[in-house]
Amino acid sequence: MSERTRVTRLREKQRGGRPELDALLDSVIVGHFALTDADAHPLILPTAVARDGDRVLCHGSTGSPWMRRLADGVQACLAVTALDGLVVARSAFESSLHYRSAVLFGSCAVVEDETDKLRALDLLTEAMLPGRGAEIRRPTRRELDATLVLALPITQWSLKVSDGWPDDPPEDVAGTAWAGVVALRTSREVPIAAPDLGAGIPVPASLR
Amino acid sequence: MSERTRVTRLREKQRGGRPELDALLDSVIVGHFALTDADAHPLILPTAVARDGDRVLCHGSTGSPWMRRLADGVQACLAVTALDGLVVARSAFESSLHYRSAVLFGSCAVVEDETDKLRALDLLTEAMLPGRGAEIRRPTRRELDATLVLALPITQWSLKVSDGWPDDPPEDVAGTAWAGVVALRTSREVPIAAPDLGAGIPVPASLR
Repeated sequence: MSERTRVTRLREKQRGGRPELDALLDSVIVGHFALTDADAHPLILPTAVARDGDRVLCHGSTGSPWMRRLADGVQACLAVTALDGLVVARSAFESSLHYRSAVLFGSCAVVEDETDKLRALDLLTEAMLPGRGAEIRRPTRRELDATLVLALPITQWSLKVSDGWPDDPPEDVAGTAWAGVVALRTSREVPIAAPDLGAGIPVPASLR
Repeated sequence: MSERTRVTRLREKQRGGRPELDALLDSVIVGHFALTDADAHPLILPTAVARDGDRVLCHGSTGSPWMRRLADGVQACLAVTALDGLVVARSAFESSLHYRSAVLFGSCAVVEDETDKLRALDLLTEAMLPGRGAEIRRPTRRELDATLVLALPITQWSLKVSDGWPDDPPEDVAGTAWAGVVALRTSREVPIAAPDLGAGIPVPASLR
């Protein structure tokens, strides 16, 4: 652990296990990359992410200036955050959130090798919708050439998890205010077919 | 609009209306602040946010080095992202997400005035759980002194919204793959009382 990856507040919430980190990375669709521009001002790029072993993948257009800057290997920071619930304490001060929050540091590398790139794109598709890859055609040459795939190594990271009960002082516990937690859950609604969908094409297995 | 706030990719998705920006800011619980450390390396701080007119509020411990750095007025970038759905196209290339993504730039100011600070804290409580403020006691002097409240002015920002159908080329539309959208929805589960909750204290109105 370095100065950079040590949690500075609520240190008891810091976790050190790769399995916990991997579970978080595998459970989200979107992460936030921070980088700096040519004037050293910070910028954020929200983008879909997928874990592949010891690296986190993302992809975008070869025409995106910020993707190209990340591809140049500038220092980057990736936040992957899951909001799991509300911690409803007996005071505003103790009220907080249940979350899993990972912050990774490093530089992205371009996934250049074609076999590796195709596999990375498949993983990004599967991360969004498991099983979808088998239902659609393969990428074309033009599509591959238009897509930049980046990989951030999982080497410098910190993970903070909040999953406890409200931590109210005794005088508040003795009072009349309610306390507890309310879990938040993200669910998928019923699929809606595109207006141009051909007649008789059923909802695919990946969505059932 | 400046170089910094112009969307560089998928420009047709850029929106310019404050009402749309405000609706997004009002609908999220957590945002991601980016800043740089003393070595000019980017860092991300996920934190609860609340809009108050023309500023975005956040709060944290006076003991947090990164909150203190934001309080010093360093250049910051705030991303507020809502993931609204999956765009299930007929190819991986056209598959994407429904989202509303705001990125704000500027420097935070400390909310020092006590009346303003109390009001800001109330807004942060209400943003997490509307109605909760009236159910709990007021902050104590010690709690106020331990809390840093920051405000980022809403002046430099961009908003990108993806809410359309898959944009497949004609040869894919003529094929047999399904296409459409799947909305994502976040909902609250049933409140769970803390183990130390006093007997007979009912679930409050803010949670019903």
